[in-house]
Amino acid sequence: MDTRIPALIGIDWGTTRLRAYQIDRTGSVLERRESDRGIITISDGRFEEALGSVIDGWPPGLPILMCGMIGSRQGWREMPYCPCPVRAVDLSRTVATVGTGRGSIRILGGVSSMAQNQQYDVMRGEETQIFGIESLSASQLVVSPGTHSKWAVIEDSAIRSFRTYMTGELYALLREHSILGRLMQGQEGAPIDETSFMDGVRSSFEDQDLLHVLFTVRTQALFGKQPPAMLPSYLSGILIGSEVSGAVRRHAAQCAVVISSPELGALYQMALSAAGLRNVAQVDGDQAVARGLWRLWQLQGAGS
Amino acid sequence: MDTRIPALIGIDWGTTRLRAYQIDRTGSVLERRESDRGIITISDGRFEEALGSVIDGWPPGLPILMCGMIGSRQGWREMPYCPCPVRAVDLSRTVATVGTGRGSIRILGGVSSMAQNQQYDVMRGEETQIFGIESLSASQLVVSPGTHSKWAVIEDSAIRSFRTYMTGELYALLREHSILGRLMQGQEGAPIDETSFMDGVRSSFEDQDLLHVLFTVRTQALFGKQPPAMLPSYLSGILIGSEVSGAVRRHAAQCAVVISSPELGALYQMALSAAGLRNVAQVDGDQAVARGLWRLWQLQGAGS
Repeated sequence: MDTRIPALIGIDWGTTRLRAYQIDRTGSVLERRESDRGIITISDGRFEEALGSVIDGWPPGLPILMCGMIGSRQGWREMPYCPCPVRAVDLSRTVATVGTGRGSIRILGGVSSMAQNQQYDVMRGEETQIFGIESLSASQLVVSPGTHSKWAVIEDSAIRSFRTYMTGELYALLREHSILGRLMQGQEGAPIDETSFMDGVRSSFEDQDLLHVLFTVRTQALFGKQPPAMLPSYLSGILIGSEVSGAVRRHAAQCAVVISSPELGALYQMALSAAGLRNVAQVDGDQAVARGLWRLWQLQGAGS
Repeated sequence: MDTRIPALIGIDWGTTRLRAYQIDRTGSVLERRESDRGIITISDGRFEEALGSVIDGWPPGLPILMCGMIGSRQGWREMPYCPCPVRAVDLSRTVATVGTGRGSIRILGGVSSMAQNQQYDVMRGEETQIFGIESLSASQLVVSPGTHSKWAVIEDSAIRSFRTYMTGELYALLREHSILGRLMQGQEGAPIDETSFMDGVRSSFEDQDLLHVLFTVRTQALFGKQPPAMLPSYLSGILIGSEVSGAVRRHAAQCAVVISSPELGALYQMALSAAGLRNVAQVDGDQAVARGLWRLWQLQGAGS
């Protein structure tokens, strides 16, 4: 059997990005495409057209499985949330079929969690990444950092609960629009300085009042403790430090998996290590979501 | 003696606003003017011109005393910070004289505080409000809420320490630029709904991870727990609740003074009361700063 034969098109369609994976019969990615046609850019429900432009030229007739915000109210078809605890097989059954010109496609639901204080939490897409972690152990802490970071507690191979932290969005807001951003030098996307980043992490570990700790960006600048070019790194450390200390305080875990790019993963590894975690692995987000889509597809009976 | 004779022009010159008070010999305000000529609007150091336009027509020859960001690096004359603990008399001596076409004017310094973890904090203007509280008791917790809220601990009638919380700035940022803001309805400046505000306060009291609690604005909307028009009130409650719970956790106070408008003061009174404080007084910010300037002027020997 030639394993290089494409078997599935997996789509992670988020708010701002669309990622498409052509996946072979072993679950490996044959080709990857990425586009800025996130769901907020699609008007008049023209999802099929946008999808077609991204996967243009890929073999017709392949099954298509989608996860992410495409299953939200603003997406192609609103899909329910599976309530925690959620196993991969539960999620695989929360799927709807939508007819299109290139055959029917499937859209997965999201996952919801309810905290003790009756507050809901939700995710769409990250659950697929989580189920795509090859080394997912029976009991684990998994973080998918980003605009809205998700921290999931895995128990008996199910997502038992999770929490969202608005870390990435706050960083962008503060950098672009706040009085703190005006103090900063250094280009958007410049590499993070590890020393200033860890200064920020420690500031948040020592003091849990984020609204106060943020102001130390200003005082550190005022008293020459951080040069203007280091302030973005220091701010990043404060926010990731606040997220990590909050999440770790809730779960006495010794090990965790970070699903992200190597750059962001390295920052979380530093912060998690400073918080006392001994064993932090980093998993590529692309690989995780493609593998998760493949696994969920197989659990659906591979198109039966 | 006619007490209605003007004795001092007091100026609170901040980043975005300039407030001018004509003060009589008893420290009462005869006339108040406010302008949007904050220091960030002044180019080429033309402070004298801006001041002249605001106090135009007021009696010439009156002494002028200023507090606020006018004494910062971006202001008219950079003045040092008095390190805590600071008594009114200490602050009154941290003053510089600047010659102008209408005689010499005086600019007050700010106040700095250093936390146990060696982090500095700073204020310019709020210390003058604090020393203007008529009922300031020897030992007290004082909050001056706003863009950057200041919480000061008063001991032996001195500001012993203080902390800044970026509450107002975060509220404006999140409302205007975040994904949460896009869910909201209701006009800027619409009155706060007390029920939704207190829901937000409780959310922060129950959970100290602000980066997570902020996301409940989204989930409360998603699950229909807060209508879109109530979301600004709920967000305000989360932020003020986070500030209040953080500040109150550090100081086992039974009473506090809030220096603010009646509207904002009422919100802080609700949150402080929910945090267990029994005795919360509200003091008008205008009156406090004018009285503080008058008091500091008197401590300088009334122009000697």
